[in-house]
Amino acid sequence: MSVRFSSRVQNVELSMIRQVMMKARDCINLGIGELDFFAPGVIREEAHRVLEDEKIGYSPTAGLPELCREILNHHGNLPGQAVCVTNGSQEALFDLILSLVQEGDEVLVPNPGFLAYPTVVELAGGVPVGYPIRHENDFKLVEEDLPPLVSTRTRAVILVSPSNPTGQCLTLEQMRFVSQLAEEKNLVVISDEIYREIYFTPKKPVSIGQVTDRAVILSGMSKMASMTGWRLGWACGPRDIIEKTTIMHQYTSTCASTLAQRAALKAFTEQGRNAVERQRKVLEESCNWLCSRVDQELDRFYVRPQGAFYLMLSVQDLKRDSLSTSLELLQEGVATIPGSAFGSQGEGFLRLSFAGRRDILAEGLARLKKGLRRLSDTV
Amino acid sequence: MSVRFSSRVQNVELSMIRQVMMKARDCINLGIGELDFFAPGVIREEAHRVLEDEKIGYSPTAGLPELCREILNHHGNLPGQAVCVTNGSQEALFDLILSLVQEGDEVLVPNPGFLAYPTVVELAGGVPVGYPIRHENDFKLVEEDLPPLVSTRTRAVILVSPSNPTGQCLTLEQMRFVSQLAEEKNLVVISDEIYREIYFTPKKPVSIGQVTDRAVILSGMSKMASMTGWRLGWACGPRDIIEKTTIMHQYTSTCASTLAQRAALKAFTEQGRNAVERQRKVLEESCNWLCSRVDQELDRFYVRPQGAFYLMLSVQDLKRDSLSTSLELLQEGVATIPGSAFGSQGEGFLRLSFAGRRDILAEGLARLKKGLRRLSDTV
Repeated sequence: MSVRFSSRVQNVELSMIRQVMMKARDCINLGIGELDFFAPGVIREEAHRVLEDEKIGYSPTAGLPELCREILNHHGNLPGQAVCVTNGSQEALFDLILSLVQEGDEVLVPNPGFLAYPTVVELAGGVPVGYPIRHENDFKLVEEDLPPLVSTRTRAVILVSPSNPTGQCLTLEQMRFVSQLAEEKNLVVISDEIYREIYFTPKKPVSIGQVTDRAVILSGMSKMASMTGWRLGWACGPRDIIEKTTIMHQYTSTCASTLAQRAALKAFTEQGRNAVERQRKVLEESCNWLCSRVDQELDRFYVRPQGAFYLMLSVQDLKRDSLSTSLELLQEGVATIPGSAFGSQGEGFLRLSFAGRRDILAEGLARLKKGLRRLSDTV
Repeated sequence: MSVRFSSRVQNVELSMIRQVMMKARDCINLGIGELDFFAPGVIREEAHRVLEDEKIGYSPTAGLPELCREILNHHGNLPGQAVCVTNGSQEALFDLILSLVQEGDEVLVPNPGFLAYPTVVELAGGVPVGYPIRHENDFKLVEEDLPPLVSTRTRAVILVSPSNPTGQCLTLEQMRFVSQLAEEKNLVVISDEIYREIYFTPKKPVSIGQVTDRAVILSGMSKMASMTGWRLGWACGPRDIIEKTTIMHQYTSTCASTLAQRAALKAFTEQGRNAVERQRKVLEESCNWLCSRVDQELDRFYVRPQGAFYLMLSVQDLKRDSLSTSLELLQEGVATIPGSAFGSQGEGFLRLSFAGRRDILAEGLARLKKGLRRLSDTV
């Protein structure tokens, strides 16, 4: 029996990140986008209570009403907005894109950017159109790059701030520009703010909710509260859009984990917020530490991260592509993500994660230094 | 701003089940497909342990290897098979169908049957073709009904045993017939066996794995271990198909809840199996009790369930459609699901769930009796 698969999956492969990770046995992992913290105690305590006191049945499709209210508040309680709680923000992205995009529709996606953006657009039958975020411009958005990319088929534009993989944030002016462009051209703005609670700037990064109530925000507990394995995310935006997202959500997964939803409620308490802030400070220290070590020991170009927990390190001088560099470094016992995994504008860079423990970071950096020196010597 | 949604969601609404349930405030609920048990103690104890001992990060995309092994064993450890663990079996259905079905492809689905089957086929761009399961035949499959429905566009056939909503099981001969038909016509057999651990026959219902290793089994912990709100399901089948399902899974939700996966491992221990068996016996008693009460008090046609926890009760005499009957009964304070929610062959029936507590069932039945008498009197 020969199985013919649908055209939508025929050209999609496991992500380059997963492929590198699968080869990264016995390596120090500077690749993974996952914090090395336990979820805050107040969240785990609530999970313990729920396990004993509740039968943990289905929640309403869109999520527990009390959690939806907390999430709405968290995003500024904008008029006419609603929430759909999903199994991680990945599912929110998927449900939203599948409800908006059909055959031939175009979506503007950041290049470099999280590779699920273009892939999910393709799975929906659409065409991802990358807008450049150039290292020559310190990985900052140049607003004028966007309008020429908008066509009559453009349906949406995806923003991310703080950015995976660049760690850079969008300014209020940039968000306002995109919001106005979207209004003129009838585009849906999708703002991925999953890393917004992890920032190293004096002020918290701007949210798209500060400039418009017509955008959809994607976020969740994975990074904010170190809950990747709990699968708890959401889409928050205009009611008409969220209603369709919720219909997709019913058929992708029925509802999000009720146990995770109950526990996540505690992230919005004072104790929960304090825990998130403590974690932010640890990451800020890791960021400072990594930047000073890179300055002293590697002497390579990078742009200081403003948020998230990634640093894009230049390897442009090595005269080989970033995938090949990344694979070479695996032999040195250190896993990094090739910048090209995030699009053509990521080429020439490696994404280093500083989400892990300091001693592991230090060992990873030592191996990286050794490996890069070897590769430099053979150029 | 006017949002144009994708054609795939424009005609899909929240399911009739969810719509009836949303109107069912202050009702005795004979509608919901959810058990009134806590998850087995051994599973909850493991969840407590994991909350304290582990950081609950992402699992591999396809699931924890040790859980995949237990699931493979559970389904007979057939050669060449693999598993993808998902956020509930709903996501397994979705990921599988989206990897198999494209524009214009046809899929045979049971009528009556769980309404996600035809809806997910439509979301994938395909055409669901219902095969009749007639009440005149005691809701048993008539094998000869299938071959005339197979066209050159048919890609797959979905089986369900025990069935939601009929409670009937397929025989070894019926499964063999479908498997042979599938082999001849190059169809993928998808066997939804989510209710297989809940049966009232002397022997456990047959699994498709007993007749072929080329079918995909959908199952999960929701019904088997009363874990609906944990979201833990899977697809188990031929490696080539599961690999594509896993790629879809990466983009729908990254991975299933690692907390739920760790805990679910305990369902396959002796303690876990004993708990599942105890729960089965309670449901068998509920089934017997409900059947005898319906015999004595309602005197209406039904087919004794062989498994799952639903009974299809005839309301054909009431000269109104089952949706209207169901809505009228809400006014009597009892929620039931109209048979038409499951397809045209369900018309004339109400689906009653006996998953709930006995005292609630009794009160629901009293209200049902009163409501049906009122509707009978006005015919």
